[in-house]
Amino acid sequence: MRLSKDIIKVIQDKDLEFDSISHELLVRTGYVDQVASGIYTWLTPGLRVIEKIEKIIREELDALGSLEIAMPSLHPASLWQQSGRWDSVDVLYKLKSRYGDKDYVLGASHEEIVTPLATKYIKSYRDLPLSLYQIGTKYRDEARAKSGVLRGMEFRMKDMYSFHDSQEDLDRYYQKVKEAYLQIFRRIGLDDVKVTEASGGDFSKKHSHEFTVLTPAGEVEIVYCESCSFAQNHEVVSKALESCPDCGDSVKTGKAIEIANIFDLGTSFSKNFELTYTNDKGTNKPVYMGCYGIGITRLVGAVVELHNDDEGIAWPESVAPYHVHLANLTAKTTPFGDLVYRTLQAEGITVLYDDREQVSPGEKIDSIRSDGTPAAPDRVGAQWGYDRAQRTQWRTYPQATLARRSYKAKRIFLELIWGFVYLR
Amino acid sequence: MRLSKDIIKVIQDKDLEFDSISHELLVRTGYVDQVASGIYTWLTPGLRVIEKIEKIIREELDALGSLEIAMPSLHPASLWQQSGRWDSVDVLYKLKSRYGDKDYVLGASHEEIVTPLATKYIKSYRDLPLSLYQIGTKYRDEARAKSGVLRGMEFRMKDMYSFHDSQEDLDRYYQKVKEAYLQIFRRIGLDDVKVTEASGGDFSKKHSHEFTVLTPAGEVEIVYCESCSFAQNHEVVSKALESCPDCGDSVKTGKAIEIANIFDLGTSFSKNFELTYTNDKGTNKPVYMGCYGIGITRLVGAVVELHNDDEGIAWPESVAPYHVHLANLTAKTTPFGDLVYRTLQAEGITVLYDDREQVSPGEKIDSIRSDGTPAAPDRVGAQWGYDRAQRTQWRTYPQATLARRSYKAKRIFLELIWGFVYLR
Repeated sequence: MRLSKDIIKVIQDKDLEFDSISHELLVRTGYVDQVASGIYTWLTPGLRVIEKIEKIIREELDALGSLEIAMPSLHPASLWQQSGRWDSVDVLYKLKSRYGDKDYVLGASHEEIVTPLATKYIKSYRDLPLSLYQIGTKYRDEARAKSGVLRGMEFRMKDMYSFHDSQEDLDRYYQKVKEAYLQIFRRIGLDDVKVTEASGGDFSKKHSHEFTVLTPAGEVEIVYCESCSFAQNHEVVSKALESCPDCGDSVKTGKAIEIANIFDLGTSFSKNFELTYTNDKGTNKPVYMGCYGIGITRLVGAVVELHNDDEGIAWPESVAPYHVHLANLTAKTTPFGDLVYRTLQAEGITVLYDDREQVSPGEKIDSIRSDGTPAAPDRVGAQWGYDRAQRTQWRTYPQATLARRSYKAKRIFLELIWGFVYLR
Repeated sequence: MRLSKDIIKVIQDKDLEFDSISHELLVRTGYVDQVASGIYTWLTPGLRVIEKIEKIIREELDALGSLEIAMPSLHPASLWQQSGRWDSVDVLYKLKSRYGDKDYVLGASHEEIVTPLATKYIKSYRDLPLSLYQIGTKYRDEARAKSGVLRGMEFRMKDMYSFHDSQEDLDRYYQKVKEAYLQIFRRIGLDDVKVTEASGGDFSKKHSHEFTVLTPAGEVEIVYCESCSFAQNHEVVSKALESCPDCGDSVKTGKAIEIANIFDLGTSFSKNFELTYTNDKGTNKPVYMGCYGIGITRLVGAVVELHNDDEGIAWPESVAPYHVHLANLTAKTTPFGDLVYRTLQAEGITVLYDDREQVSPGEKIDSIRSDGTPAAPDRVGAQWGYDRAQRTQWRTYPQATLARRSYKAKRIFLELIWGFVYLR
């Protein structure tokens, strides 16, 4: 991507107010644009980060045998009345059609759509288990949207629903999803995710698990053990908890971001929507359901909260919008600059190429420092620059990855210099 | 994809009512599920068709230098009041937050979001031209949603917005988009798309062009010339039109589906949102804007309206969810069947493999006939079957493509038979 053709730039506006690090960094470096509190436009590099995260999620869920579908956001009110959640869920946006006085809910979750769908496909035990997921938009009428993309009124989410012939089969799948989630988070650079026991919340009367990452920007308070994997949402902690119930060590309390959750829905939705199957003895039985969410736009915020330094964002390589950020520090574009850009791309390296002619070298270097692209080239001749000593964001990457990429990039630069000298 | 793991099946329900061919075929063969009138869930194969169309659209728009972004669907009412469309557009869904009495519009179009965004990035003539697009969901409060996915209340759309320093530059880009659109439609199997003159409609006072395909399921009436490319929406036809104003030949009238439209917005939105640029003499000027839409879910419906036969859908190869539909016609899955499936996939051929053990051969053959996958294998031994003479959907494909694919598939089958005989 040539920056002369893109609209990325550092937003200098001093009047902007931010209430989290990720909020400020994502807005100032042009990943998102704030339309209103809790409502954002994702600009080109931000969308690239989202696409990389979604690709990783799809790979892990497809491996679980789940099928991707796309459900609507306009839900007839009758379905939410049938589930009993029309009155009980307080974050629902409700709206009316001008015609025939029809009421709708804007989807905050999709059990009301997926359960009736499942009744068309699940008839016998042979149709089970079944797992369906989608990646789409969710709406929540939040009293106070805050912290940028960490708590929005409109946000991207992956939601998955599974269907089983017994509690035991649901339990097994629930465990498999738990492991797949931790694998997803590791792949996008979140190594220390706490699997936190929580209440069922709005959406279930049974227990649930939240996946949380510790950071001061978080909105939930968790109690966790530093020695083992024990973690509980503060709301469900029994009052007398002075030491870890699993290992006896001492417990700590901290703020955390909830990036995902999984619910054992039991047979509550199945009963409301008459979702049953015939077992091998010919008897009709209710289907057991699980529900599994990942907040994708919130995940971007969480990654930025954990991966930043004095200079700005420091993306993990797996979700970085570009591999290399090139900058031409001369006033005019040069054939050599274009050659480096094209050659890196031909080698399969995605490049953000700052070829703008009207922008000062200082502003270009600021942009490299703050936008978090993993690699910026070494100084090559007098024309290319970003002093190695200043590239502090590199310290957050494994040395091996850095060395390999650095070696490949350096080799290409050297070959190009010789080629260029030779050609002219 | 193994059908034993998928939920595709032919929906036999006799009570369903359909008001277009595409509506019936897409529902009956499991591409979409109807949640309510005008509201659909896209099931796995339907989503694959959408993804293939979107990939083609992205390739052609990226080639135009347009940047992909993702704008929200919740729009603060104040922005629609500022543009003057809060009262003038009658298809808007309006809703309220429970908090602070805030009003929102569900996005039916995105000028109200993209124009304020552009004011942050366009300052001087050097920032122009600029083109931004997104692929996302649109909402329209339709009096009567009908014809399945052809007219929905919630639908996927690609919308693009361009910004220019003069009417001439806008005109040039408008022409380039027109050509890119025709290229997109050719690539997805719509060769005879009429570029139809139309009024500006709800969204513009200036003229516009609609891209239409003739079919009885269409909702617009167009007047067109059979000799040249002249076409007009019936609404703008001057009453005395007896012959083609371009070539003098006779004109015809027909029903058509509007699959896309392009608008010259002039400076109307720029003026309402104070979107100006400084020209090379330092003078402030309003920015010229164009707006370009493609109805993606409607496009799927249009493709089915034009590509079907007695047996069902006959997908153009470029958008078919799978290249080959394999069926095991024996009662049990066999190692040979699995071998064919895996080998075709390893050759880069996407396969829908009907390995269900509980389904009769007749139902499997019905499914192959109706779901429109371009290629089904020849009868191989006694185990694989779908009589060549019955594969009438193939007649809709260029002979060369068919022959090439057929040859490759046949070669693989023959190699596998010999390999299998040899191995056991």
